Amino acid sequence: MDAMSEARGEAHGDGDVGTLMQAIGTRARAAARRLARAPESGKNAALAAMAENLRKAAPEILARNAEDVALAREAGQNAAYLDRLSLDAARIGAIAAAVEAIAALPDPVGRVLAGFERPNGLKIERVATPLGVIGVIFESRPNVTADAGALCLKAGNAAILRAGSDSLGTAMAMAQAMRAGLAEAGLPEDAVQIVPTRDRAAVGAMLTGLQGCIDVIVPRGGKSLVARVQEEARVPVFAHLEGICHVFVHGDADLAMARAIVKNAKLRRTGVCGAAETLLVDEACAQTHLAPLVTMLLDAGCAVRGDEPTCAVDPRVTPAKDADWDTEYLDAIIAVRVVAGLDGALEHIARHSSAHTESIITQDEAAAQRFLAEVDSAIVMHNASTQFADGGEFGFGAEIGIATGRMHARGPVGVEQLTSFKYRVCGTGQTRP
Amino acid sequence: MDAMSEARGEAHGDGDVGTLMQAIGTRARAAARRLARAPESGKNAALAAMAENLRKAAPEILARNAEDVALAREAGQNAAYLDRLSLDAARIGAIAAAVEAIAALPDPVGRVLAGFERPNGLKIERVATPLGVIGVIFESRPNVTADAGALCLKAGNAAILRAGSDSLGTAMAMAQAMRAGLAEAGLPEDAVQIVPTRDRAAVGAMLTGLQGCIDVIVPRGGKSLVARVQEEARVPVFAHLEGICHVFVHGDADLAMARAIVKNAKLRRTGVCGAAETLLVDEACAQTHLAPLVTMLLDAGCAVRGDEPTCAVDPRVTPAKDADWDTEYLDAIIAVRVVAGLDGALEHIARHSSAHTESIITQDEAAAQRFLAEVDSAIVMHNASTQFADGGEFGFGAEIGIATGRMHARGPVGVEQLTSFKYRVCGTGQTRP
Repeated sequence: MDAMSEARGEAHGDGDVGTLMQAIGTRARAAARRLARAPESGKNAALAAMAENLRKAAPEILARNAEDVALAREAGQNAAYLDRLSLDAARIGAIAAAVEAIAALPDPVGRVLAGFERPNGLKIERVATPLGVIGVIFESRPNVTADAGALCLKAGNAAILRAGSDSLGTAMAMAQAMRAGLAEAGLPEDAVQIVPTRDRAAVGAMLTGLQGCIDVIVPRGGKSLVARVQEEARVPVFAHLEGICHVFVHGDADLAMARAIVKNAKLRRTGVCGAAETLLVDEACAQTHLAPLVTMLLDAGCAVRGDEPTCAVDPRVTPAKDADWDTEYLDAIIAVRVVAGLDGALEHIARHSSAHTESIITQDEAAAQRFLAEVDSAIVMHNASTQFADGGEFGFGAEIGIATGRMHARGPVGVEQLTSFKYRVCGTGQTRP
Repeated sequence: MDAMSEARGEAHGDGDVGTLMQAIGTRARAAARRLARAPESGKNAALAAMAENLRKAAPEILARNAEDVALAREAGQNAAYLDRLSLDAARIGAIAAAVEAIAALPDPVGRVLAGFERPNGLKIERVATPLGVIGVIFESRPNVTADAGALCLKAGNAAILRAGSDSLGTAMAMAQAMRAGLAEAGLPEDAVQIVPTRDRAAVGAMLTGLQGCIDVIVPRGGKSLVARVQEEARVPVFAHLEGICHVFVHGDADLAMARAIVKNAKLRRTGVCGAAETLLVDEACAQTHLAPLVTMLLDAGCAVRGDEPTCAVDPRVTPAKDADWDTEYLDAIIAVRVVAGLDGALEHIARHSSAHTESIITQDEAAAQRFLAEVDSAIVMHNASTQFADGGEFGFGAEIGIATGRMHARGPVGVEQLTSFKYRVCGTGQTRP
């Protein structure tokens, strides 16, 4: 019984979910073994066929999506939620195009990451290989099914996708089209599997790793989902819990540049993880820079919560509470503080950053180098907006998420970070003395 | 109270161990933050001072070691165990020299792993950083204290070292010398901490990660230790459970080369993880190659457990049981089987390998390439002995162990694999459209 036919039944008691999930894991591992040997041409053919089938299946996908949206509306979800959940022909076209863009990326598997010849003549190479099986747990956005499935496939990995309850019908219709594309290209359908039940026990099962059948979990969704995954997962997790990103305007910052970057970092889009949440202004330039920056933010419609010097700038500033320095607003709100030079900024960031992205604005190269070296975040920037914290902007083509951990992947997780490696040792009969 | 002064008390109730370990973790994290900023010259000065202090402290270390050995002897440990535990002046000299060799390695921190310029002018670099805090859990060999502490330090990491109960006194004397070296070089002493209690609850505490204070655990010891760590750890583990390494003599193998490699792979040292445990012989050359290989092994004193064709070669061969294909003998015993070509070998290896090291002997380049591509092990070899599976032989200078997982580190784990990375983004005022 495959995942799709099981899905039609969809009645699973608690025990059944464990059995169902283990079967999905076992099939994923078997598919991953086959994918690891798939040539680039085969993977790209499958991605092209997936995109084509997504377009062809648009009527079926839209029908299932309409059912999902209707149920979510009945359940009282708000307009923003319903918009995230909703597909139309144009969105399906964009989803298919994104799959084709992933097909066009260079194959991350087989890259020679390092090579060296030993004095005894052994040639040793470190070569990129697929990671194996990737479990993706997401919420309402249906595009994740295609994005994540395609990214995993490009890197030779099998994907187990757990959609949010509200988008399960849509996700299954999309996955069916993608699986057909895999089959057409001669690759295992089980390279992309949707968990075909809304039972929350399925998430718990994935977090155990399904007895070694899942190598890594990627949560895509809100903070409570990520927190649960990070807390409970027994396998590695690529994720960031939050993006409390800082912009530090150093004493030697150019004011015009600072104004442009701060505005962009905070307000270009406030709901993304790379949006700035805290502005630190060096006391050395507070006299000249603080008021213009704060006024610019306020005039642009941003609420400002400030320390004492910041409150003194404008009556619209409200006093910051301790919690503000640790808050990811994801909204047009910013916390602003004057700090004692680079050291003050480094100290504040070490205490309050979520290790996602921090930027220094300065014309002082030495200060910039210290900031880049000493801030322990996945992404550190000099004279650039934190909103560039994105796989696409990094040139990765696409990303499955941004990771703030230090193991394996860090920063935007693109196809290269979805690989592992092995050592190839070529000899001519060498034995070890 | 530092680790050393706590150690002198050494009376810890169960609750105390948790508190003690958390304090060690917190100190390690603070030390790691300082180490991350330490220049290469500072780390190397500390390593040189560590080596020097280990030599100077030899009388104290040997006195503590004599106590450890006496207790182990009273406890009935065998001669091989007592030998592993015992130090003398020459061994301490070798340990100090190994620390100096680690100092001489290139600094793995700060390496630019990738660099690219975006169309908007942003310069993005992926730069190696320390991993953070590494927990090492080992058994009787006292040299691990120095080796592991020095390797971690070279990569800018703090180390929490849990020595085996039998070697705790020795390990603490060595660590004291190393900590003095750190202090002399102006680096935090807590970059190297020994868990100052024999209480086994300390291991359990380490495996929880000490509330985010340990980034990775490295077990160094027998299979039961590694199995427990892999089973219970809530943080990533760099390890291999066992090395069931295969040598496959392909139909196009040169017999003389096969004989030399098989002999070396099995018998050079039988107790190392890279020792071959199973010999697969292609049916295509069994007629000519099987008997000479088996006779060579038997004549060299190796017990052979074979399938039917192998048993037919020589009466000294005993029939292999199913379990033999999954056994790491670590002894002069080998399992031998005739397989149906490359596909038969790949199938056997996929089922029975521990993903450590496998080697193909062949003059057929295409067969070699398929083997290297399709065998999913940390190290794959062509015409070379599996006993080269070693960080020193790979040119890494030293290794903290060999990992068979696919996350972050794989194969020999040298200083480069003890690093993470971050992205440095340098702009000239770019904002995101």
